Amino acid sequence: MRILVLHGPNLNLLGTREPGTYGAETLAAIQGSLRELAGELGVEVEFFQSNSEGALVDAVQAAYGRFDGIVANPAAYTHTSIALRDALLAVAVPFVEVHLSNVHAREPFRHRSLLADAALGTVAGFGADSYRLGLRGLVAALALERG
Amino acid sequence: MRILVLHGPNLNLLGTREPGTYGAETLAAIQGSLRELAGELGVEVEFFQSNSEGALVDAVQAAYGRFDGIVANPAAYTHTSIALRDALLAVAVPFVEVHLSNVHAREPFRHRSLLADAALGTVAGFGADSYRLGLRGLVAALALERG
Amino acid sequence: MRILVLHGPNLNLLGTREPGTYGAETLAAIQGSLRELAGELGVEVEFFQSNSEGALVDAVQAAYGRFDGIVANPAAYTHTSIALRDALLAVAVPFVEVHLSNVHAREPFRHRSLLADAALGTVAGFGADSYRLGLRGLVAALALERG
Amino acid sequence: MRILVLHGPNLNLLGTREPGTYGAETLAAIQGSLRELAGELGVEVEFFQSNSEGALVDAVQAAYGRFDGIVANPAAYTHTSIALRDALLAVAVPFVEVHLSNVHAREPFRHRSLLADAALGTVAGFGADSYRLGLRGLVAALALERG
Amino acid sequence: MRILVLHGPNLNLLGTREPGTYGAETLAAIQGSLRELAGELGVEVEFFQSNSEGALVDAVQAAYGRFDGIVANPAAYTHTSIALRDALLAVAVPFVEVHLSNVHAREPFRHRSLLADAALGTVAGFGADSYRLGLRGLVAALALERG
Amino acid sequence: MRILVLHGPNLNLLGTREPGTYGAETLAAIQGSLRELAGELGVEVEFFQSNSEGALVDAVQAAYGRFDGIVANPAAYTHTSIALRDALLAVAVPFVEVHLSNVHAREPFRHRSLLADAALGTVAGFGADSYRLGLRGLVAALALERG
Amino acid sequence: MRILVLHGPNLNLLGTREPGTYGAETLAAIQGSLRELAGELGVEVEFFQSNSEGALVDAVQAAYGRFDGIVANPAAYTHTSIALRDALLAVAVPFVEVHLSNVHAREPFRHRSLLADAALGTVAGFGADSYRLGLRGLVAALALERG
Amino acid sequence: MRILVLHGPNLNLLGTREPGTYGAETLAAIQGSLRELAGELGVEVEFFQSNSEGALVDAVQAAYGRFDGIVANPAAYTHTSIALRDALLAVAVPFVEVHLSNVHAREPFRHRSLLADAALGTVAGFGADSYRLGLRGLVAALALERG
Amino acid sequence: MRILVLHGPNLNLLGTREPGTYGAETLAAIQGSLRELAGELGVEVEFFQSNSEGALVDAVQAAYGRFDGIVANPAAYTHTSIALRDALLAVAVPFVEVHLSNVHAREPFRHRSLLADAALGTVAGFGADSYRLGLRGLVAALALERG
Amino acid sequence: MRILVLHGPNLNLLGTREPGTYGAETLAAIQGSLRELAGELGVEVEFFQSNSEGALVDAVQAAYGRFDGIVANPAAYTHTSIALRDALLAVAVPFVEVHLSNVHAREPFRHRSLLADAALGTVAGFGADSYRLGLRGLVAALALERG
Amino acid sequence: MRILVLHGPNLNLLGTREPGTYGAETLAAIQGSLRELAGELGVEVEFFQSNSEGALVDAVQAAYGRFDGIVANPAAYTHTSIALRDALLAVAVPFVEVHLSNVHAREPFRHRSLLADAALGTVAGFGADSYRLGLRGLVAALALERG
Amino acid sequence: MRILVLHGPNLNLLGTREPGTYGAETLAAIQGSLRELAGELGVEVEFFQSNSEGALVDAVQAAYGRFDGIVANPAAYTHTSIALRDALLAVAVPFVEVHLSNVHAREPFRHRSLLADAALGTVAGFGADSYRLGLRGLVAALALERG
Repeated sequence: MRILVLHGPNLNLLGTREPGTYGAETLAAIQGSLRELAGELGVEVEFFQSNSEGALVDAVQAAYGRFDGIVANPAAYTHTSIALRDALLAVAVPFVEVHLSNVHAREPFRHRSLLADAALGTVAGFGADSYRLGLRGLVAALALERG
Repeated sequence: MRILVLHGPNLNLLGTREPGTYGAETLAAIQGSLRELAGELGVEVEFFQSNSEGALVDAVQAAYGRFDGIVANPAAYTHTSIALRDALLAVAVPFVEVHLSNVHAREPFRHRSLLADAALGTVAGFGADSYRLGLRGLVAALALERG
Repeated sequence: MRILVLHGPNLNLLGTREPGTYGAETLAAIQGSLRELAGELGVEVEFFQSNSEGALVDAVQAAYGRFDGIVANPAAYTHTSIALRDALLAVAVPFVEVHLSNVHAREPFRHRSLLADAALGTVAGFGADSYRLGLRGLVAALALERG
Repeated sequence: MRILVLHGPNLNLLGTREPGTYGAETLAAIQGSLRELAGELGVEVEFFQSNSEGALVDAVQAAYGRFDGIVANPAAYTHTSIALRDALLAVAVPFVEVHLSNVHAREPFRHRSLLADAALGTVAGFGADSYRLGLRGLVAALALERG
Repeated sequence: MRILVLHGPNLNLLGTREPGTYGAETLAAIQGSLRELAGELGVEVEFFQSNSEGALVDAVQAAYGRFDGIVANPAAYTHTSIALRDALLAVAVPFVEVHLSNVHAREPFRHRSLLADAALGTVAGFGADSYRLGLRGLVAALALERG
Repeated sequence: MRILVLHGPNLNLLGTREPGTYGAETLAAIQGSLRELAGELGVEVEFFQSNSEGALVDAVQAAYGRFDGIVANPAAYTHTSIALRDALLAVAVPFVEVHLSNVHAREPFRHRSLLADAALGTVAGFGADSYRLGLRGLVAALALERG
Repeated sequence: MRILVLHGPNLNLLGTREPGTYGAETLAAIQGSLRELAGELGVEVEFFQSNSEGALVDAVQAAYGRFDGIVANPAAYTHTSIALRDALLAVAVPFVEVHLSNVHAREPFRHRSLLADAALGTVAGFGADSYRLGLRGLVAALALERG
Repeated sequence: MRILVLHGPNLNLLGTREPGTYGAETLAAIQGSLRELAGELGVEVEFFQSNSEGALVDAVQAAYGRFDGIVANPAAYTHTSIALRDALLAVAVPFVEVHLSNVHAREPFRHRSLLADAALGTVAGFGADSYRLGLRGLVAALALERG
Repeated sequence: MRILVLHGPNLNLLGTREPGTYGAETLAAIQGSLRELAGELGVEVEFFQSNSEGALVDAVQAAYGRFDGIVANPAAYTHTSIALRDALLAVAVPFVEVHLSNVHAREPFRHRSLLADAALGTVAGFGADSYRLGLRGLVAALALERG
Repeated sequence: MRILVLHGPNLNLLGTREPGTYGAETLAAIQGSLRELAGELGVEVEFFQSNSEGALVDAVQAAYGRFDGIVANPAAYTHTSIALRDALLAVAVPFVEVHLSNVHAREPFRHRSLLADAALGTVAGFGADSYRLGLRGLVAALALERG
Repeated sequence: MRILVLHGPNLNLLGTREPGTYGAETLAAIQGSLRELAGELGVEVEFFQSNSEGALVDAVQAAYGRFDGIVANPAAYTHTSIALRDALLAVAVPFVEVHLSNVHAREPFRHRSLLADAALGTVAGFGADSYRLGLRGLVAALALERG
Repeated sequence: MRILVLHGPNLNLLGTREPGTYGAETLAAIQGSLRELAGELGVEVEFFQSNSEGALVDAVQAAYGRFDGIVANPAAYTHTSIALRDALLAVAVPFVEVHLSNVHAREPFRHRSLLADAALGTVAGFGADSYRLGLRGLVAALALERG
């Protein structure tokens, strides 16, 4: 089972800027711990981060046929990108939406997700742990589906 | 570390009604698997289910001083109960909000949560696994807090 | 064929308070006339009234397997209770929604029903007769369904 | 006691088109059964159908002094015709609003009625039976009024 | 003259939780000072607190014929309970709505009261003193009415 | 100078129904007094009333080349007819919009006019006098335009 | 019969600024022609203009007992002054609301009047003639009232 | 293959009024060119224009069983007629919605179509060419469907 | 302790106009009774009334350093004056907002206060007694603050 | 005459993913058929597809001076890209907006186009044929313009 | 070149109250620095401050013919005064709108300006420097206009 | 002190397209004049323009540690890019938002900025001068901060 972990804009800064909101773990550290968890769960993970909506759409398209699921933290594009939604619906790879911060406790424009209703599930507010919980949830759901 | 798992209205029917939306696991089965996971994580869990808003408020008040965290699936009251929100804010016991179904893919009146912005984190859409992910997330966050 | 007639909050006061809005017939008198009509239609009726949302949810859950249809006058909970909606959807017992007064001619917050789209049909504005028309409509629809 | 039954646009197609939404009974059959019920109730009924808003307004105006009540199924004009509302208010003949389908379970623009708050009562969702229930309710209300 | 003082959900916690928002006086202390003020004003007071909407509706119904006025702090139910409004309108006992905190300075969902337009008057933001001012205002208004 | 006076739906009932809202003058009487005023002002008037939106559109189209101005009381169609607006814009005959009642003091759906912004001017609330004031205003404006 | 003509802010500039929107007649000229028309109608007129909301409120209060009617062109305060509305309701002197320009054809914030529903009638869009039509309408309505 | 071309209100004026908005081609000329194009495409066309909503509904009903598709330019009724929508849904004849002008560049009330979501496709803004493109598109889609 | 009592527009008419809405007590009488109550409470009161927003702003500015608290009944300016809000925030003198009538039971535009969230507390609906309750509440709150 | 055909995000997947929504023709096939049609119409076509908003803006800018018209299917960016709108307005190359699916029958966020009001015309819902109709319409309009 | 600097309500308090929001510079100091800058730029400046909307309207009217431009900080009236807008449009003296604080970062009712769309330009958030930047911008724009 | 000047999409076209809206100065000319002004103010400036949201996010991230302030004209992305907002908040480099045109006088979707509340200040409507005023304002604010 192969899982793509997708990071949206500004997540490359994790751990270096605004630790109060996003936590002190760097993206590299998070990815390390996800790789470790993937090992435990018996799956493979790959990572992709970009600040560009188009590059993220490209990455989702490229996932078709190569990955069984996607853990997506689309960050700001969660709220503004219909293109990303369309890509995820087009490739039809099951995905979960994760957020480091509790988006419901932030600005009103962060309360609407253009992706969530198409996701398998959502996790938000647990800091870097949101990724790990999302990965666990996705793998369990895919396993269930395969019987 | 002691955790209260709170189930809102109609969750006593789990596994017996509408399995397409809520899954085929009964509440008893879910609670069994949560007790098992709690054992793994080294914490204690207790459960409470009610169809009554007032009884849920009572249960939250009673949790003060007795529990270190709450995994709450307030079901329908998520969207209508300010009383439950006030109880959770009053006792100030950290809680996570979990939902079996993906509320973002259902009726518009399920898109607004009166609790989510006060929660530590939220998990939705993973069926019975939402509880397990929520418990993991909560325990990890409490552990982090205690150093 | 067994029918449950469900009365929401404050309907126990019928006939004694605000006759201008709700009519002069007491709840007991309405129930008497419904029992009589049930006899004519060859069905059985039982009644339940409560001021508590939770108790009404309990009653709907208990109707599962015991009743073939529900005539529900949820009164104020029509406009605020998602829990009641969820219970009715969960047990999947066909129901009709009835109101004594013409809700469309009252305050704006009474114009939205959280149940109506899930109901088999709705009747409003005929005073105590709304119950009788609702019972007739429900019994005829159930009969039709059974062929 | 004389009752006018008013059918709005497209109801002339009843029983021939979209039986899934509107039932398989033709308008002629419905009118036959209403005439029968009217006999039972000791009242006279007449019928009028038109696809034209203006013709329906004319019919309501003509009802003044000739009919004691109106059973109106204004169909699409329910949601768009202030002219029909004004006619009904002008002649002040008591009326009930009936709908074959459950309008609350359809498109949002069918949730608002421009007539309902001026009606004696409303019935919706019982298929052709909505007319029969509406007629019963209207006759009972008029009888009550006359003492 | 007999006055019922009604406390909504979570007010049993007064003085013990969130003193920054609700003040440091316990409910018992507030009730003591209200009994004292009642003595000064020559009226009797009784108290009722519940976390359950249904129980509060029951209490309002029971007030009919036994009390001349109600000082109601419906707390969270202020914003969500049409049932409570209906009960107060049904028994037609004059009431005042009081709030410890300044609801206008809090979350938007606390800005709408489902009761205020039916109240004799409203008092908010004076902490425990809101109850005392509400009692004074109610007694003076009832005295005026009786001439 | 030739002026068309256009009456929308239900205005044929003027003076016979709802005098409290629309006054006691019949349409014939109003037209008589308008003919008289037209004489004083040195212009000719013709009248047209219909309950049908289509017939009113036809009448406006027919006015092209035959009339110099229109005094329009579109009644209910004021708020619902884009077709009438389009006809008036197409023929480009200057028109004034008049209402017997004060539409701003009635139901919210009467507060929006689909014609007013295209009118030369509007008059409302003066009963039958609204027509006479509208005619005066229109004639003066046309006279001014012609120098 | 004595009539006060009230001019709101910026109307002192009439005829000198923005003739395209407001016409080329000066306020003095308009007042002259109104005095002339008043003579014809057998009534007295007085005038008051101010750019200050407070001064206009004062003028309305002073009209009590001294004037039988008010022709008010509140200009910008039409859309923003509840104080002016309260003054007009308090003195209960019948008034008509007039506007030089067609407010419905201008910015959206000019579409709402805080006074119109309390007015006897409204006239808009006829330039300076709006005042004259308003005066005629008001005098006729007052005459009718007096019999 | 037989196609009905339906023209809504005021389209009989085409080419004679407002050429800036609707073009200089008359309705007769447009119909001539459509007949020519129909010949090329090997289909038959018939035309119907009316200013009356009811007559357009009648025409749609009459199309059932006689036409294979409809090119509809409902003009003003696009935005206000649920009756027309219901007729098109009832007869279930595939239709395309066409507009001469670019409705998106005009008044906000022209931005909502009550028919578009039920149409096979839509064409707007190409002047008389919109009809020709719509006919082409409809014929191609019907041909595709028939294989 | 010195308290300023501020009266907004039209309150100079109290007792003489609209007693049904605002009560029969004149402003002078209210001020007399407030002076008496102030004596009892051991504080000084001064009064200011104006129909002008600017004059009220001036008065609030002048209160700085001279008064310890303000009892403000801003009347119509409650709903429209950001200038008054800014003045109250600028001088930072604690104030309570009082209303004679129950603003929640009146027009929708009276439901929003531009001041309430900045007030110490609010009192509404008790007629002239609102002032007295407001004064009591303010003095108690200031006393508490000073220890 | 040279025409640029612009394809927005995810259109590179055409024919391979979600044929139910977007049809079974690949982008290459569509482009082939457009090239053929262009030949018939005597114009040249070029194509550009990108998933990146910025690249599409670049392409529009580059069209200036090189193309006479644009057939744009901006896909998801239709609803979110003001940058694309600004580019199209800046280069002022006439364009038509085309969509494969009927956007009016999909999610609400697809009902608003940020480009449509600036387009020459729009075509939607005809599958791949939308492009061909758009090209025909554009070429005819440009031809007309050039006389 | 002569420039009027207009200060709205509460700006007379600058430097003495709420320095955290509005800065520590007094109005006199700001005016001194503006006079100095005016000297540098070779223009004359005059100042006017008032808390009264009417007085500000008077001042704008008086500017006609005497000033070439206005630097306006309408403070609270920015959001509520249509009268001020009308005055500025009437005199047609070019103006810039300036704010000390960043209005976009404050209460929602400060996000709407009734003047900004009529202004030459806007400056906000630079404290007292907003005035200086506004003056520079205005003078440069006027110079440009004069060639 | 080093300042980055950021230009959003389509600003590379400045001076060549739509001079009526954006002025006749080219981007190169504007940058030349900004460099000159920077010299006067004793600061360094660098420039970056892109049509791609992702590239602008990259540029903001790269500004961290290299620049003391940013003059940002995000053009269309002002209204749609949460990613840009997040980048600016993440690097926490003080920035001012500038616009050539008066955005308040344009389409409604340009009235909302997703960046303005996070900016130090905003300048709009002065054409190319907006950049120069923004640079002055930024440098003065930074100087002030540093003492």
